[in-house]
Amino acid sequence: MTEFLRNGGRAAHQLRPVRITRGYTIHAEGSVLIEFGNTKVLCTASVEEKVPGHKKGSGEGWVTAEYGMLPRATHTRSDREAARGKQSGRTQEIQRLIGRSLRAVFDLKKLGERTIHLDCDVLQADGGTRTAAITGAFVAAQDAVNTLLASGKLSATPITQPVAAISVGIVGGTPLLDLEYTEDAACDTDMNVVMTGAGHFVEVQGTAEGVAFTRAEMDALLGLAEKGIVELMALQQQSLSKYELLPQME
Amino acid sequence: MTEFLRNGGRAAHQLRPVRITRGYTIHAEGSVLIEFGNTKVLCTASVEEKVPGHKKGSGEGWVTAEYGMLPRATHTRSDREAARGKQSGRTQEIQRLIGRSLRAVFDLKKLGERTIHLDCDVLQADGGTRTAAITGAFVAAQDAVNTLLASGKLSATPITQPVAAISVGIVGGTPLLDLEYTEDAACDTDMNVVMTGAGHFVEVQGTAEGVAFTRAEMDALLGLAEKGIVELMALQQQSLSKYELLPQME
Amino acid sequence: MTEFLRNGGRAAHQLRPVRITRGYTIHAEGSVLIEFGNTKVLCTASVEEKVPGHKKGSGEGWVTAEYGMLPRATHTRSDREAARGKQSGRTQEIQRLIGRSLRAVFDLKKLGERTIHLDCDVLQADGGTRTAAITGAFVAAQDAVNTLLASGKLSATPITQPVAAISVGIVGGTPLLDLEYTEDAACDTDMNVVMTGAGHFVEVQGTAEGVAFTRAEMDALLGLAEKGIVELMALQQQSLSKYELLPQME
Amino acid sequence: MTEFLRNGGRAAHQLRPVRITRGYTIHAEGSVLIEFGNTKVLCTASVEEKVPGHKKGSGEGWVTAEYGMLPRATHTRSDREAARGKQSGRTQEIQRLIGRSLRAVFDLKKLGERTIHLDCDVLQADGGTRTAAITGAFVAAQDAVNTLLASGKLSATPITQPVAAISVGIVGGTPLLDLEYTEDAACDTDMNVVMTGAGHFVEVQGTAEGVAFTRAEMDALLGLAEKGIVELMALQQQSLSKYELLPQME
Amino acid sequence: MTEFLRNGGRAAHQLRPVRITRGYTIHAEGSVLIEFGNTKVLCTASVEEKVPGHKKGSGEGWVTAEYGMLPRATHTRSDREAARGKQSGRTQEIQRLIGRSLRAVFDLKKLGERTIHLDCDVLQADGGTRTAAITGAFVAAQDAVNTLLASGKLSATPITQPVAAISVGIVGGTPLLDLEYTEDAACDTDMNVVMTGAGHFVEVQGTAEGVAFTRAEMDALLGLAEKGIVELMALQQQSLSKYELLPQME
Amino acid sequence: MTEFLRNGGRAAHQLRPVRITRGYTIHAEGSVLIEFGNTKVLCTASVEEKVPGHKKGSGEGWVTAEYGMLPRATHTRSDREAARGKQSGRTQEIQRLIGRSLRAVFDLKKLGERTIHLDCDVLQADGGTRTAAITGAFVAAQDAVNTLLASGKLSATPITQPVAAISVGIVGGTPLLDLEYTEDAACDTDMNVVMTGAGHFVEVQGTAEGVAFTRAEMDALLGLAEKGIVELMALQQQSLSKYELLPQME
Repeated sequence: MTEFLRNGGRAAHQLRPVRITRGYTIHAEGSVLIEFGNTKVLCTASVEEKVPGHKKGSGEGWVTAEYGMLPRATHTRSDREAARGKQSGRTQEIQRLIGRSLRAVFDLKKLGERTIHLDCDVLQADGGTRTAAITGAFVAAQDAVNTLLASGKLSATPITQPVAAISVGIVGGTPLLDLEYTEDAACDTDMNVVMTGAGHFVEVQGTAEGVAFTRAEMDALLGLAEKGIVELMALQQQSLSKYELLPQME
Repeated sequence: MTEFLRNGGRAAHQLRPVRITRGYTIHAEGSVLIEFGNTKVLCTASVEEKVPGHKKGSGEGWVTAEYGMLPRATHTRSDREAARGKQSGRTQEIQRLIGRSLRAVFDLKKLGERTIHLDCDVLQADGGTRTAAITGAFVAAQDAVNTLLASGKLSATPITQPVAAISVGIVGGTPLLDLEYTEDAACDTDMNVVMTGAGHFVEVQGTAEGVAFTRAEMDALLGLAEKGIVELMALQQQSLSKYELLPQME
Repeated sequence: MTEFLRNGGRAAHQLRPVRITRGYTIHAEGSVLIEFGNTKVLCTASVEEKVPGHKKGSGEGWVTAEYGMLPRATHTRSDREAARGKQSGRTQEIQRLIGRSLRAVFDLKKLGERTIHLDCDVLQADGGTRTAAITGAFVAAQDAVNTLLASGKLSATPITQPVAAISVGIVGGTPLLDLEYTEDAACDTDMNVVMTGAGHFVEVQGTAEGVAFTRAEMDALLGLAEKGIVELMALQQQSLSKYELLPQME
Repeated sequence: MTEFLRNGGRAAHQLRPVRITRGYTIHAEGSVLIEFGNTKVLCTASVEEKVPGHKKGSGEGWVTAEYGMLPRATHTRSDREAARGKQSGRTQEIQRLIGRSLRAVFDLKKLGERTIHLDCDVLQADGGTRTAAITGAFVAAQDAVNTLLASGKLSATPITQPVAAISVGIVGGTPLLDLEYTEDAACDTDMNVVMTGAGHFVEVQGTAEGVAFTRAEMDALLGLAEKGIVELMALQQQSLSKYELLPQME
Repeated sequence: MTEFLRNGGRAAHQLRPVRITRGYTIHAEGSVLIEFGNTKVLCTASVEEKVPGHKKGSGEGWVTAEYGMLPRATHTRSDREAARGKQSGRTQEIQRLIGRSLRAVFDLKKLGERTIHLDCDVLQADGGTRTAAITGAFVAAQDAVNTLLASGKLSATPITQPVAAISVGIVGGTPLLDLEYTEDAACDTDMNVVMTGAGHFVEVQGTAEGVAFTRAEMDALLGLAEKGIVELMALQQQSLSKYELLPQME
Repeated sequence: MTEFLRNGGRAAHQLRPVRITRGYTIHAEGSVLIEFGNTKVLCTASVEEKVPGHKKGSGEGWVTAEYGMLPRATHTRSDREAARGKQSGRTQEIQRLIGRSLRAVFDLKKLGERTIHLDCDVLQADGGTRTAAITGAFVAAQDAVNTLLASGKLSATPITQPVAAISVGIVGGTPLLDLEYTEDAACDTDMNVVMTGAGHFVEVQGTAEGVAFTRAEMDALLGLAEKGIVELMALQQQSLSKYELLPQME
């Protein structure tokens, strides 16, 4: 079992360069371009002063996500979902995952009867788009909450802690952190892990693409993921503190 | 942290009564009614002598699954998906999971250029429908393969090993095996685990519904799941040997 | 014109064995598995305490039906309508027929502003699915009404009389009662007849599949149908009286 | 039981004025405007030199129909089906009926591997649109066949006999021929009858809108329908002979 | 550059014979068959006493249009949009154009909170269907307004001036007025022009089908269009005054 | 009639700052971010080595476009078209316009039997998205053609000349070049003009939003548009020559 050689000499336990750009577009309450290497996802957070039917009159808010991929975000062009007239199963799976992950760190009662829509659109794909989307959506959601705090619509933050996500996988017997596309295509096991700032799991989704994986392999992957998520949260924090883009409530 | 009281005095690590009825309907190559307590899923396996586009000319076969729920399988009636004109995200997620799980134990080259369609239709729901579907679909797939072997269309089985699935979760601090509906609705963490006969993981999907879960909790849940799946595989084996419904190849 | 030989030595004017199982599933207010030989249809009746738009504020209730067939209920697998994204013309025709037939024996004013949804799902098909569905749906509707009476939501039954249905047809010159699939495929004329307990017609739908039919043939078919429906109503009555499943109002 | 008073002093057994205009539009191989009183349906027959999948390579042709209603053909505007994105159950039921009725008088083998599409579009509705459509579609189909004969694409007609249709119903106890809209809305029983030139039935579709109907009432309705259809066939014949629009084969 | 020879010896700057038939169908508040040579479009105006969501509570009304083509309005049959389940891009473009054109001559405040639906259905197509539709829809809208005035629902007309439309194009170097189908198919430039009674432009849509067009060509086309529209407005006026179909307010 | 004051002191006849970034994403054969002030559109050109049905066997290629807008590209979030299950009429109108505009400068015979897909996705909207899309799509198409030339798949360019587009409009009586959103919302007349490098028109689409426009106003707008397009073409040229991103054929 020789170690798999990664692009650019990346180590097995190393994240790709991560870049988080806040204020990437001007209209949304939160707008973040997140890059995991060549994967680029634009995450916007839009505040709407109403809730879907199942929350009406509950005093609680809602956080929901949609995911899309530009037709030529990928190596070969894929059909535009709007033109085909429906979202694929994969798209729906991913947007449900993003929504659940973000709701896990929101106190919906404190949000009040309003909705935060998180739109995660992949401009360029190279593996890990759903984990980049969750990690970037948290920053966008934080900016949207900051806007609500600054405008006095909220007096206390409904966000309980940070959330971030990373993919891990086993390629040629080696557990790798943050798979890029060629690794993802070659891997036997692919796992997406979502964790909170407290170091607990929100989602663990492991799939054997080739041979099934053992408990020991699973343990190794969870360890790698934990390491990566700690690093991502530091980057989220750094990004959110950087430019003081938005005035804060005291 | 007192132990949660389960219906019928069931222990935390105990499966509900499982019943596997082969030959439940007459037309399909494999037709299995599987019951996990009050959850009843009809799993049929249909053999089609052609493959979808992405497998044409590959010499390989395909195994795919569809999932549905009768409108009044549940406590309150839900809309019929055929009438609404689309399958929900949940439905698509589940049928993709069933398909991946079954393909994990198939050698598609040995199957030859044909498709096995697994239709899993929930007649009555009380939690765990997707895990019952995977467990039952394996038995139906085995019967369909037996038909192909008996007719001489296949000379060796393309099935490499059994596959089964179970849900586990944490309710009120207690890890429970095989959640029924009321437990599922109350749980903090819900995990679906799919394993092979060799004791390896095909899929692990853990979701924090309420508070996020720790690594220790995850370990406890995986242990419980492993125990349950070993028992399910014994029941699959027993069911497949019981009536010698179909002539076997030597 | 020699008499057509039927499966199992069935006489031309003979029904297949009919079995009506009440309480087949646990959640619905009425749940009936009806079997006409190898044809098996699960009919559930669900009570909803509201009415569709065109009945709002009218003081009247509504009775409506939906029909579906599991993909492998038939000899060869047919596409899942939910996956194709629409119900076929045949499905819509059948569910409209079931709805009209049941409404013919309901006093909608006495039902009050609530809806009874009848879901008829074919688990196994061998001809006559729509007539089995109507006959079984009546029993399910009766159980749902009994539930409403028992709970005090209704003080008098809105059901005015029983309704049942049967198919008849001419195969090789012989009028046959209750066609099974092979007979249906071979017949020149196919007629579905729906009648009330008073012996009157609710629906007569005759179709020449091959050569057109004469008035004399039509008369013969109507006579056969009448005979069959009288027998079906006796079986409905027997089934409803059997287990006293539900407490009755005096 | 006093006789129902009909518009314009029409007798119970009397058709509305029927007008059949051939060559109503210029592009179609057959184009007929048929009027039953205020009901106006444009029936076009289009020949296509290929067949649908289930007839490919069979040496047989196909005859199929589509039905539509202009949004303001009716008293109050109804939604445009193309805008809503689907055809109603009623529309599908009617177009299936028209297709079956026309196929009943076609020898598909003699038609050869080509399709005749019958488009029946209601310009103005006042009851009886489906029966007018069938009656007019036959004339359009005859013109299309004449075109094929004249061009030498066919050497013998595939049409075996005429087909026509009429509605009958019971209003206030009186059996009426050819219901107009207000009669249709008021009737207890509504029956559509399709017959061939030989006086045999192709379709009989009777529906109790209010109280169920007796065998005697059914007999009376069938008699009325037969009378009306004989008259319609005379009008079809007269129309087809009138202008010698198309050269005939000897 | 020799002058293109038009059917029937029509001059380059000459309209086809235009016929406007009011009261073509009986149910709609306005119903006009407009013919530009062989192009025949049925335009109905339906009044609905409510407005779409974006106008609710505004005190303003709405004018909207839908466009359709019967499947065999054209040389070869095209698919029925209702059967395909969606309107083509071309259809949507045209109906949006008709709607905008009519709204340009309506004072929506004076219309009050009601909607006028303009349905333009092409019975026979030979080029210029959208311009015929706009020209005919204006007459239908005027009739609908007259109905509202006559019934006292309106006390003053919300129509500010007439509107009409014509196509122009360059074929073989010659600017032509009112293109028929064969000209439209052969032309290099195709322009649809919508003008008001005051001689101003509501819409100008010029498209180079083959080679791009010069400013001088554009000027020539606009001049031709202006001439044609003046003639169309005289015909609209003549048609509206002709039979005094509807009582007028003084 | 005082001159309308534009943002940032922009003159009536002045373009917003235009930025064209080639190679914006890595997978597409051409990938261009074009900015007209705050309007940002990502235009990718994808080469596919096959053609749609209507071009099969013709020896000719095809150029087609799709257009989309990210949900929060706009001031308030709009529904995601993929989630709603269909593209709006506006979207279809725009993508048809882009496709026609680009085909106007392509010699499809020289392109050979392959398709160039132009995907224009609006990341941020502030008026003029369709004109930015056309202008940017040309640069992306040129890069895709350069790729085909460089790889030897084409030996001569199928592009006959440049194409670009701009919006013009009348706001408060003043003709303005390159409308931004607030101007577009306020304008009486809105015109989109597409021109070739030879200074000829490909498309002229003028719409009176408020009062209809005169011939003189139209002339003024066309003059402004021509000026703007000449400037845009200089910027296209400059961008394409800038980095010599792709090797050229001699």
